[in-house]
Amino acid sequence: MPDIAAVKAALAAQRIETPSWGYGNSGTRFKVFTRPGVPRDPYEKLDDAARVHAYTGIAPTVSLHIPWDRVDDWAALAAYAKERGLRLGAINSNTFQDDAYRLGSVCHPDPAVRRKAVGHLLDCVDIMDATGSADLKLWFADGTNYPGQDDVTARQERLAESLAEVYARLGEGQRMLLEYKLFEPAFYATDVPDWGTAYAHCLALGPKARVVVDTGHHAPGTNIEFIVALLLRAGRLGGFDFNSRFYADDDLMAGAADPFQLFRIMHEVVRNGGLEPSAGVAFMLDQCHNVEDKVPAVIRSVMNVQEATAKALLVDADALAAAQRSGDVLAAHAVLMDAYATDVRPLLRALREERGLDPDPVAAYLRSGHQERIAAERVGGDQAGWGA
Amino acid sequence: MPDIAAVKAALAAQRIETPSWGYGNSGTRFKVFTRPGVPRDPYEKLDDAARVHAYTGIAPTVSLHIPWDRVDDWAALAAYAKERGLRLGAINSNTFQDDAYRLGSVCHPDPAVRRKAVGHLLDCVDIMDATGSADLKLWFADGTNYPGQDDVTARQERLAESLAEVYARLGEGQRMLLEYKLFEPAFYATDVPDWGTAYAHCLALGPKARVVVDTGHHAPGTNIEFIVALLLRAGRLGGFDFNSRFYADDDLMAGAADPFQLFRIMHEVVRNGGLEPSAGVAFMLDQCHNVEDKVPAVIRSVMNVQEATAKALLVDADALAAAQRSGDVLAAHAVLMDAYATDVRPLLRALREERGLDPDPVAAYLRSGHQERIAAERVGGDQAGWGA
Amino acid sequence: MPDIAAVKAALAAQRIETPSWGYGNSGTRFKVFTRPGVPRDPYEKLDDAARVHAYTGIAPTVSLHIPWDRVDDWAALAAYAKERGLRLGAINSNTFQDDAYRLGSVCHPDPAVRRKAVGHLLDCVDIMDATGSADLKLWFADGTNYPGQDDVTARQERLAESLAEVYARLGEGQRMLLEYKLFEPAFYATDVPDWGTAYAHCLALGPKARVVVDTGHHAPGTNIEFIVALLLRAGRLGGFDFNSRFYADDDLMAGAADPFQLFRIMHEVVRNGGLEPSAGVAFMLDQCHNVEDKVPAVIRSVMNVQEATAKALLVDADALAAAQRSGDVLAAHAVLMDAYATDVRPLLRALREERGLDPDPVAAYLRSGHQERIAAERVGGDQAGWGA
Amino acid sequence: MPDIAAVKAALAAQRIETPSWGYGNSGTRFKVFTRPGVPRDPYEKLDDAARVHAYTGIAPTVSLHIPWDRVDDWAALAAYAKERGLRLGAINSNTFQDDAYRLGSVCHPDPAVRRKAVGHLLDCVDIMDATGSADLKLWFADGTNYPGQDDVTARQERLAESLAEVYARLGEGQRMLLEYKLFEPAFYATDVPDWGTAYAHCLALGPKARVVVDTGHHAPGTNIEFIVALLLRAGRLGGFDFNSRFYADDDLMAGAADPFQLFRIMHEVVRNGGLEPSAGVAFMLDQCHNVEDKVPAVIRSVMNVQEATAKALLVDADALAAAQRSGDVLAAHAVLMDAYATDVRPLLRALREERGLDPDPVAAYLRSGHQERIAAERVGGDQAGWGA
Repeated sequence: MPDIAAVKAALAAQRIETPSWGYGNSGTRFKVFTRPGVPRDPYEKLDDAARVHAYTGIAPTVSLHIPWDRVDDWAALAAYAKERGLRLGAINSNTFQDDAYRLGSVCHPDPAVRRKAVGHLLDCVDIMDATGSADLKLWFADGTNYPGQDDVTARQERLAESLAEVYARLGEGQRMLLEYKLFEPAFYATDVPDWGTAYAHCLALGPKARVVVDTGHHAPGTNIEFIVALLLRAGRLGGFDFNSRFYADDDLMAGAADPFQLFRIMHEVVRNGGLEPSAGVAFMLDQCHNVEDKVPAVIRSVMNVQEATAKALLVDADALAAAQRSGDVLAAHAVLMDAYATDVRPLLRALREERGLDPDPVAAYLRSGHQERIAAERVGGDQAGWGA
Repeated sequence: MPDIAAVKAALAAQRIETPSWGYGNSGTRFKVFTRPGVPRDPYEKLDDAARVHAYTGIAPTVSLHIPWDRVDDWAALAAYAKERGLRLGAINSNTFQDDAYRLGSVCHPDPAVRRKAVGHLLDCVDIMDATGSADLKLWFADGTNYPGQDDVTARQERLAESLAEVYARLGEGQRMLLEYKLFEPAFYATDVPDWGTAYAHCLALGPKARVVVDTGHHAPGTNIEFIVALLLRAGRLGGFDFNSRFYADDDLMAGAADPFQLFRIMHEVVRNGGLEPSAGVAFMLDQCHNVEDKVPAVIRSVMNVQEATAKALLVDADALAAAQRSGDVLAAHAVLMDAYATDVRPLLRALREERGLDPDPVAAYLRSGHQERIAAERVGGDQAGWGA
Repeated sequence: MPDIAAVKAALAAQRIETPSWGYGNSGTRFKVFTRPGVPRDPYEKLDDAARVHAYTGIAPTVSLHIPWDRVDDWAALAAYAKERGLRLGAINSNTFQDDAYRLGSVCHPDPAVRRKAVGHLLDCVDIMDATGSADLKLWFADGTNYPGQDDVTARQERLAESLAEVYARLGEGQRMLLEYKLFEPAFYATDVPDWGTAYAHCLALGPKARVVVDTGHHAPGTNIEFIVALLLRAGRLGGFDFNSRFYADDDLMAGAADPFQLFRIMHEVVRNGGLEPSAGVAFMLDQCHNVEDKVPAVIRSVMNVQEATAKALLVDADALAAAQRSGDVLAAHAVLMDAYATDVRPLLRALREERGLDPDPVAAYLRSGHQERIAAERVGGDQAGWGA
Repeated sequence: MPDIAAVKAALAAQRIETPSWGYGNSGTRFKVFTRPGVPRDPYEKLDDAARVHAYTGIAPTVSLHIPWDRVDDWAALAAYAKERGLRLGAINSNTFQDDAYRLGSVCHPDPAVRRKAVGHLLDCVDIMDATGSADLKLWFADGTNYPGQDDVTARQERLAESLAEVYARLGEGQRMLLEYKLFEPAFYATDVPDWGTAYAHCLALGPKARVVVDTGHHAPGTNIEFIVALLLRAGRLGGFDFNSRFYADDDLMAGAADPFQLFRIMHEVVRNGGLEPSAGVAFMLDQCHNVEDKVPAVIRSVMNVQEATAKALLVDADALAAAQRSGDVLAAHAVLMDAYATDVRPLLRALREERGLDPDPVAAYLRSGHQERIAAERVGGDQAGWGA
């Protein structure tokens, strides 16, 4: 049976990065609903992220999205974060919201557009130098909507060339994390649609290039934890963009749509050493809170990942391995399910209290008055959001 | 074998309605790319629609979307249409872009919001009275993102009640066309997710209520032509929102993603009498042209539906029925495939020439200079688009 | 908060029917693996079902499949069941394993084949008369593999006619439960592919006809609990065929693939009164145990349904309704998730002990020696299985 | 514009391999329907394959499946083939129908089972030596049905080790073609579920290992032609298992479910040099004819692949590239669609006549009396089929 002290230690050491854009307004193509109190600049996003860390104790870093979070003085932003107990995390590039990118960015048929896109990615590395961020996270909206629209193979060549130029710019301790996504916003062919494509490009680039698994970016029926296990085996899992989905890239709160899947993913992470710092796996959220309040939704998501991790740590690895070796299907399955059926909330409440935190982060946040305060104070200016 | 003269007559009689919003800018949640020459008001949309009709000869009506197409003087708009050889078609309601609708419209837990939504629908019927439109087309974005967010059954009750109130307002010769959609923008549960739900509500409402099949609104693997056949058998097929998709509700040009499916759908339409005016089936497009020019894309889409119809009309119904009766799987399949394999473009070119049209509508449009003209003239003002 | 005594009472009253074929060998088109101790006749199946009931206390009825379970003396079989504390449950027809049914059964183009199929269904009603079974459960493999193979509408007419003849034969207190299934074994079009089709036929037939929801029979992304809520609202939910799936109709143990979905389904059942005997909902398993031992797999499945029911009963309905009414998305979702996160195994262990059962049914079964006994005794003869 | 003589030459040079098991009975887990005249041994399968080649002129090789096609004297079988104008093609292994393989073959936890499976694969290479077959085609049914059942990573290690042993045995000019498949018969995790996994193993093995694309083995929404283009770019496309599907691995006749997809696949093949003999791409069918007659269904499938190839060859590559370069979405798409809309049947009829074949292979076959002859002659003995 797992040692509870060791489980607690692992949980105390876990770190989950929250995305700056999770605190802003977001929506679907049909409508972005605005919510009172939404941040108007990167500083206010850090204020909100600091609340998430204050109540959960395990979310000390914040992913930035360029240009949404661009500031003139990166050192000042980093200092602002530090004062609030935070650090700046992965730098996320954006090569999809400029009018130039209608037909793609690094895969665009026009070399001038590719030039522009690569320039942006190189800028992002400059920002990493300034902020001390270790990871450049790349998601490309590139793709085509109609058969014949562009040449699949030519686009792969352009992609490989663009990536190579950016990879060459990476400094010591910097990494390139490459995301894949089945579809949206491109509908016929996406240029990095699956883990295999991302993996093949990472192999060609070198050891600093790794694959990011966004849990909402797969075809229906895909076994995500299998991919996680494979990438960990290959030493190429760079990290996660956690969120949840029922249909497509719904970007709902992590763990809300399929908590059992999240548990299975964390089981493969634990099983394959992915929780160890040496594994270099970044645990990040990437979600949209279209209809719910942002800060408590992020807190809830962090807790959902934490609960899934706790259950994964409670799996009796010896009993599991023994049942698997003996080919006892029901017994092996039962070992896994026993961990999943466990209510880990008492354990996590106890852990929080030991660490001086409120046992119920959401309730503590709601009692804190932060939500009312920001709704009252953040008036005027432009609320942050997709494209803003 | 089908009689070619009869095929041509049926094709000459076919009418396909184009959507006013298909001429405006559209996009995904990531970006709406703007295109030069996009209309800035409903009048300019009609100008573009008139070009589509001028070159195809079969697109004389235009669906309107309220409030996007709201004008002060509906009679003037109708007259403007008439001068261009057009008529105003179905009125499409919008209960998803007001801030009040964050948690739904006609299914919202707050009766005041439902009141507002029903009020909008009743307004739409007023507009029908003014424009002479026969069909009120209802698509509801209502739904929930998270399990537990709201009560499924209560929402159905609210939906039924709201629909009944609007149904009671319909005048002589007016119909309610109810759309269904699996997901988006709601991700956990949509209040009218499938044809069964729409059909059940139509049955409860009465004979003026019919189901609309949007070809992009189904779960993967759904046999859409089966649904079409069922609804025709039940006398409840109100019409189509044609578009095409590879993954979700991609809203690509009709016939672009799966031309064989479009043919199979039109085969069921022909087989079950759906082309007859008495069947009351409205053939409408509902698409987005995110990366391509709008007017030629609409022309192409109209032609794609027309080509699928031509192939369906070429099915040798007697040979098909004989093979089906005898249980000859390969022979029956071959009869259908023979029609599909036929290149109907020569037939359609001939038909156009007989009717005084250019045999190649897209080329004729591109030669016409319209695209350059609108790009030059439509400067300033706000381009029409989603949410505008 | 839910009253624990009431929860326990509801759980004690719950009944889950197990399928006779779940005790036999099964497999995929690639291979049926045989397991030692598998029953060789309906009597031995009842022996196994009796073990499941003995350890779970809530599985007193057994579904039969005709002709797999055909015996000469139905009264003797019923008596045999009664001696073991069991009753015979739903009668499942089989119109897919005779060579005549290659192109369908009740939808076949040849009236002689339809005659044969209807004859079989009428025989099943005779068996119901003999066994006292109340429910005729109909699943049709009918469909086509290729576009054009047969006429969709004609097949619907034949289906309607066939069902009407069988419906007319139903006696007092007898019901017809109609299943739907997206695909398999037919690949292009299935004649009853979705709940809407089944519902429409039930409406046409009359009040004794109801829809059965098999949890493995939907397109990817389908919200099953929504369908459950709709059918309960319409008074047309006849029952469930529980099993679980990752991809298609995998027929895995209920609750094994998506326990959260099973909970959501049971939540809609509880919310909409489906647990009340007056609702007339039959809770049945319909699964295959291809690689695992049968009896403990059935026990585990019964327990999984029971655990999902317990969690659904623990939902704080008042708090949920209040949060829903106020539009508090996160609070409403949290109420539901609190119930789901609860470890209900202690409650169920306590309930079993109060009822004189072993708290751990699987362990008790494994200790009982039944598995070894049947492996030793059931030698020779033909093991029961699909097609046998 | 493409040169018609060159198109015809390419079509005349095309070779499509038919599978021995396509001539036998097949079915679903629910039922295998038997058809009159089905072969009873590998010799009779070759007789049927010879008919397909005689009428199509492009199907001179036949894939074998071991042990279904095992004979004592391989030289005799090869000679028998040669007399009929045929050659023996790829050797397909079978590690899924022995009782030992319930929990897997090369990934099984028990080393003795892995030993047995590897032994079978080595036997297959021996058979290749005897028949002169160049390709060992490997599809593994290995996987798990339940989370926790076995260890994903350990299974990958076993797989890698097993493959390495077989790879080492390959002789000069022999290749290993590795298939992937999303699911079935395993339902939770398949050990080679996607092209990325197959590709990673091939990279580890060496240049003789290549990936096979079975067109029915993907998740819904997967863009198969994209994978084809990627594998061709990487020099790792070993070949195709053509068939078609609406939902899962339906194994219908190639081109029957989505002829446009088949065209798009062949377009990528042509575009990326895959038709050149030097590319080493094997074009094979792998299908089941559950409800239709086998020989004409295979003829039809060969013709469907041929028609898709013809259309792909008719794509105006220069016009396409020019439109793609200029970013003209509609023009580029139109170039592709023009080729697809072309009725290539007259071209293929002409080609056949030039080559001394009947212009209509199916009609010629049906007229030939072969079907009646085999139905009359092949009486007694065991019909070939899955598992036989």
